[in-house]
Amino acid sequence: MSVTAPVGFRAAGVAAGLKSTGAQDVALVVNDGPQAAAAAVFTTNRFPAAPVLWSRQVLSGGRLRAVVLNSGGANACTGPEGFQDTHATAEHTAAALGRAGLEVGAVDVAVASTGLIGVRLPMDRLLPGVTAAAGALSADGGPDAARAIMTTDSVPKTTVQQRDGWSVGGMAKGAGMLAPSLATMLVVLTTDAAVEPAVLQEALAAATGVSFERVDSDGCLSTNDTVIAMANGASGVTPTAAEVAEALTAAATDLAMQLLADAEGSTKDIAITVRNAASVRDALTAGRACARNNLLKTALFGNDPNWGRVLAAIGTTDAAFEPDGVDVTINGVTVCRGGAIGDPREGVDLTGRAITIDVDLRAGTEQATIWTNDLSIAYVHENSAYST
Amino acid sequence: MSVTAPVGFRAAGVAAGLKSTGAQDVALVVNDGPQAAAAAVFTTNRFPAAPVLWSRQVLSGGRLRAVVLNSGGANACTGPEGFQDTHATAEHTAAALGRAGLEVGAVDVAVASTGLIGVRLPMDRLLPGVTAAAGALSADGGPDAARAIMTTDSVPKTTVQQRDGWSVGGMAKGAGMLAPSLATMLVVLTTDAAVEPAVLQEALAAATGVSFERVDSDGCLSTNDTVIAMANGASGVTPTAAEVAEALTAAATDLAMQLLADAEGSTKDIAITVRNAASVRDALTAGRACARNNLLKTALFGNDPNWGRVLAAIGTTDAAFEPDGVDVTINGVTVCRGGAIGDPREGVDLTGRAITIDVDLRAGTEQATIWTNDLSIAYVHENSAYST
Repeated sequence: MSVTAPVGFRAAGVAAGLKSTGAQDVALVVNDGPQAAAAAVFTTNRFPAAPVLWSRQVLSGGRLRAVVLNSGGANACTGPEGFQDTHATAEHTAAALGRAGLEVGAVDVAVASTGLIGVRLPMDRLLPGVTAAAGALSADGGPDAARAIMTTDSVPKTTVQQRDGWSVGGMAKGAGMLAPSLATMLVVLTTDAAVEPAVLQEALAAATGVSFERVDSDGCLSTNDTVIAMANGASGVTPTAAEVAEALTAAATDLAMQLLADAEGSTKDIAITVRNAASVRDALTAGRACARNNLLKTALFGNDPNWGRVLAAIGTTDAAFEPDGVDVTINGVTVCRGGAIGDPREGVDLTGRAITIDVDLRAGTEQATIWTNDLSIAYVHENSAYST
Repeated sequence: MSVTAPVGFRAAGVAAGLKSTGAQDVALVVNDGPQAAAAAVFTTNRFPAAPVLWSRQVLSGGRLRAVVLNSGGANACTGPEGFQDTHATAEHTAAALGRAGLEVGAVDVAVASTGLIGVRLPMDRLLPGVTAAAGALSADGGPDAARAIMTTDSVPKTTVQQRDGWSVGGMAKGAGMLAPSLATMLVVLTTDAAVEPAVLQEALAAATGVSFERVDSDGCLSTNDTVIAMANGASGVTPTAAEVAEALTAAATDLAMQLLADAEGSTKDIAITVRNAASVRDALTAGRACARNNLLKTALFGNDPNWGRVLAAIGTTDAAFEPDGVDVTINGVTVCRGGAIGDPREGVDLTGRAITIDVDLRAGTEQATIWTNDLSIAYVHENSAYST
């Protein structure tokens, strides 16, 4: 049921002709209230797309009534004209909702886009699509909305987290906050709990920090990454801040693992856990260095437990460790012990999709896990054939 | 003529059975004097291989008589036993040279290795190979030595820089100091000029700083990267420090461009020049961000001038620029102007091997060029099939 699982949200997904395939490409999610609390996390790329610039402004008040999303074009690096296109989209959405009896202004409407950078959106198709989406809004529309934001995703990603008298719903497309593989990660989370905007923002930041931000499929940071959460209080339940954070984290983690499993061209899901680090930051730094090492990622694609490439990767970081104090365990076999040769690498079975790499730094008590994928021939094929 | 072009150097390359193909795999370069000045630059990886640990120690005195190199095994992450193997190799080389009438100790012999990490060297093959190489030393042996250090290189890389009464020779294998693609970059430079060790070290650091360190094929840093320079004064000429730096830079740049052209599985040589930067560091940071962006590298493999991926890459850096002040020119077409859409991307011809990407930051007066390759299906294939 996606974003419409919680009470008081409607959604729609329609085909507006932005995608050459004729598939659904415009999604609309509307919060029918009574409350309109909202929070968001955006890309830190210094070339934020026009919809990111717009939505960041809109969300600054902690209030939102609707999100309109499109695939088939990122509207990034499109200059002032691109920003006007986003503004027009929000205005058009507000007007369409107004005709349907919802009193909303453009400043209540966030916009998110995904697709090719550096190309203007075909507004003559997008705006009629928004009108159609507003007309198709339904309390069952969550799955349609989830389909309409897909780009190279092979399946829609949705989640529902049921709690005591309230719930969180969500949808996502892409491949992770710091790893937008083909392009961008867009996420919308909804809840019918009553949550103050400040509490919602804190809970969302905590949830993304341990989920989307730890999925690092290819290390590339999109211009369009957007995670939006909306809370309407329609359930009448006011959970504690901790309960909100827990439920949002569960939803975000569920979606993040779906993104990982569907990363472009991937054949492996790789969980890199760095243990006994001096700090969580050190653990994340060492884990990311592995996740971004093309030599390691190609080796794993080839079912090769090449632990030397794990050491070579963390050897480029400033994480605290002694070179002769590092162990590496791949799928349960400690192939490297004390920075040198451990158990025979022939004992490692990498034929399955799931791979775990455990790095023990013996430098402290903290740990963190980074999730990534292998670097496959299909990844190169998909990403070289994208815009042409 | 490789490393034996300058007067007073002999070299050899022999097959010791380290490579399963039976190709040459042990190289020896000997400086016959009269002087024995030497300098070196090593990997900054925190897991330096045993030969790097050894050679760094040996070179600390600025003096060297011989370098013994092997392919077919990196001797990295092999613990104290691996270090003993390197030590034994240097001892064995010194003894073999002693039998041939050269008075050298193990501390006069640098060692360099390349191949798989985390595997002990087959000393029962390597040491007889060293003996054979010592017996095969010749003033014409430079090309053999260059062949013996090849791993996935498709051609040996050599250079000769003739100056007024003196010369610089050199050989290399691999794919760049910060981009050892399959493994490692090994370089030996020789000159018959008379050069003090301190002058040679400064000249070598300057030469590598603008050549090997600006080739960034895949962003991975090897455990074994080694660049060694030897000067014997046999020409009787004492050039100025500036003349030495110029000639070493010419030799290093020539070899770096050969490494780039032969990078594993590459189909494009890409020169990324960042202009009008606030500092050289900013220009390098922005250039490296592009060189390491898999989405950009796959796009270029697909002949796609996807300039949005250039902006997305530099948007992740802290280089000084205003997002609406950045121009991007690909193969002469300014496809992005002021951070937004420029001339039509259809006008960019990427069918050739050479690609130039010019990024104008409009933030200062400095500039730098980073060289890289595309990310191809063949790259994934070669690197996934390596150790298995």
